[in-house]
Amino acid sequence: MKIVLAPDSYKGTMSSTEICEIMRNEIKAEFPECEIMAIPIADGGEGTVDSFLYAAGGKKITLRISGPYFNEVESFYGLINNGKTAVIEMAAAAGLPMVGERKDPSITTTFGLGQLVLHALEHGAKDIVVGLGGSCTNDCGCGMAAALGVKFYNRAGKEFIPVGGTLDEVERIDVSSSRKKLDGVRLRAMCDVDNPLYGENGAAYIFAPQKGADEEMTQILDRKLRCFGEILEQIVGEKDACLFPGAGAAGGLGAGMKILLQAETLPGIEAVLDAVNFDGLLLGCDMVFTGEGRIDGQSLRGKAVMGIACRAKRKNVPVIAVVGDSIDESLDPAYDAGVTAVFTINRMAIPFTEAKPRAKTDLCYTMCNISRMLKAV
Amino acid sequence: MKIVLAPDSYKGTMSSTEICEIMRNEIKAEFPECEIMAIPIADGGEGTVDSFLYAAGGKKITLRISGPYFNEVESFYGLINNGKTAVIEMAAAAGLPMVGERKDPSITTTFGLGQLVLHALEHGAKDIVVGLGGSCTNDCGCGMAAALGVKFYNRAGKEFIPVGGTLDEVERIDVSSSRKKLDGVRLRAMCDVDNPLYGENGAAYIFAPQKGADEEMTQILDRKLRCFGEILEQIVGEKDACLFPGAGAAGGLGAGMKILLQAETLPGIEAVLDAVNFDGLLLGCDMVFTGEGRIDGQSLRGKAVMGIACRAKRKNVPVIAVVGDSIDESLDPAYDAGVTAVFTINRMAIPFTEAKPRAKTDLCYTMCNISRMLKAV
Repeated sequence: MKIVLAPDSYKGTMSSTEICEIMRNEIKAEFPECEIMAIPIADGGEGTVDSFLYAAGGKKITLRISGPYFNEVESFYGLINNGKTAVIEMAAAAGLPMVGERKDPSITTTFGLGQLVLHALEHGAKDIVVGLGGSCTNDCGCGMAAALGVKFYNRAGKEFIPVGGTLDEVERIDVSSSRKKLDGVRLRAMCDVDNPLYGENGAAYIFAPQKGADEEMTQILDRKLRCFGEILEQIVGEKDACLFPGAGAAGGLGAGMKILLQAETLPGIEAVLDAVNFDGLLLGCDMVFTGEGRIDGQSLRGKAVMGIACRAKRKNVPVIAVVGDSIDESLDPAYDAGVTAVFTINRMAIPFTEAKPRAKTDLCYTMCNISRMLKAV
Repeated sequence: MKIVLAPDSYKGTMSSTEICEIMRNEIKAEFPECEIMAIPIADGGEGTVDSFLYAAGGKKITLRISGPYFNEVESFYGLINNGKTAVIEMAAAAGLPMVGERKDPSITTTFGLGQLVLHALEHGAKDIVVGLGGSCTNDCGCGMAAALGVKFYNRAGKEFIPVGGTLDEVERIDVSSSRKKLDGVRLRAMCDVDNPLYGENGAAYIFAPQKGADEEMTQILDRKLRCFGEILEQIVGEKDACLFPGAGAAGGLGAGMKILLQAETLPGIEAVLDAVNFDGLLLGCDMVFTGEGRIDGQSLRGKAVMGIACRAKRKNVPVIAVVGDSIDESLDPAYDAGVTAVFTINRMAIPFTEAKPRAKTDLCYTMCNISRMLKAV
């Protein structure tokens, strides 16, 4: 018997790695001989590198880079697939927790993120996956691009590294050096938000306030993103090229990576499943367990459970989703996508404030009962 | 494939018959060819006769009897097992709803209940099952016994039919005529309460207030039960013979049926399972679905789920319990008793007041997902 575990986290309650451990223990109690592969699903935010390493094996590289304020900090990334794939998380180079109370998206940089990529390239990685979650920046990825050789010049012809507050000073961009560095490299951004670069749903208006911008700064940041966006659009030769869904992720890093560094953006779940060769793991697999904190309309638009179900369905493997809450009237769209069954961990009619502290024991209980039933049939 | 459904009600939320219907529909959706036997578990209260008839087939006999105030009322009982077994519910002869606002446990009678038994005997029934739930009386079963030929005499040697307020006037009891009538008849009382006939946990103190007794009347009723109990104890020749668990059920009917009419008392679940030949139904059965509103310590002391699990375990049939709430820390005692797995219907972390109105759709959802999983493995 072979089972694959691929749960997303229950946000704020349990990490996907903790969920994997509980699922593994409860299944092993009933099926001691069962082969279990655990893939804690990363969402691109803090913990993404650890999740990939847990799922795929590999090594964690630590190094010193420039932090969000160009200060030197300790950081890390992961190498998997015999060093061919590097997994990098924004949160380890310009994460919001790294700046503590000193939040200021007008002056923070993603330069260190570019240094991580550069280090991985210099050590032979040909496939770079970057998780975009949890940034403290609004620099449209200029720092990252600069670290990889993109040159930014102002009106005076002077080269500089733009940050959120100086994006409108860019007059000219030269990508020739970075293109050489990235030749033959596949660069991918894990991105699960739909926001365009600028405007009322853009990076500044939606995300800058949580990064420390007040109302005035938010308006200014949006204006500067728009200025810079026009230059990016000139590079592409296409109006609205910065309004694609995900352009506004991580303070505009989505747009910057795509246009300046020719990266692909893809849903986080697809990046994870590709990296661990999920389709290969499904061969000979009897059942997949997945799950997330809540299954709802959003899940049906490409999040973890649905991404997993689609692939498992193609291989005819049943998918059991174990979730915190299930709030949809109908699960038909999930069933259609390939979800076999959904079980919630709630074992009493109590409000979330009371249910949350017992989530781990409730998950144990639910997995125990599912395992016992599977054994009996 | 053969499945037996044997759920108890979710008290106040769904009847056991409604639960059976939902379970049947959801299983049939996945397994259209499945043979399904539905046994809604009755608890001895209102609806007990209908539950037995639904489970076992048979016919419902309607007739006119004496009501709680010796007034003529329409009543009924059920005949199953080709007329050999009669199922009778106290609630249909002296039920609390039958007296409306006119509650008075000092003058109400169980005489009509005896008439139902008598009618069944006269039509050939040899096995009489009486559900004791929901009575409006406190007559220690004297009315029922009188209808079946037991004679009660007062100090003046005059025959009368004692009620709650006149139990202490009984001087002598003659059971000879009733013994003849009940010769060769198995009379059983379904009883799930543990109360003795009298005392602080007795019929009066625990149940009379809900039947309309104020504090003074409750004390008086208890004293009279105690007087009458001493006479019953003389009949048996055993001190404390009226303190057995269940003696105080249904206004002392437990004690009266046992001592005056030589009835057995047994847990409701055992009566149901015997009557429908549950052990026979388990032959060739792939799975039993049971359930109740809440699984807890009380369930582990002989209620529906546990009674079913014990029998299924002996026949090696898996038992899935689908419950409202599961409140125990550990389900080990349930597993040990034969429960394979427990699933709760809660699909969101919300309080009971919000969960209750959605209980039916939540049960559909849960049964649907269990059925889908069973089909996939």
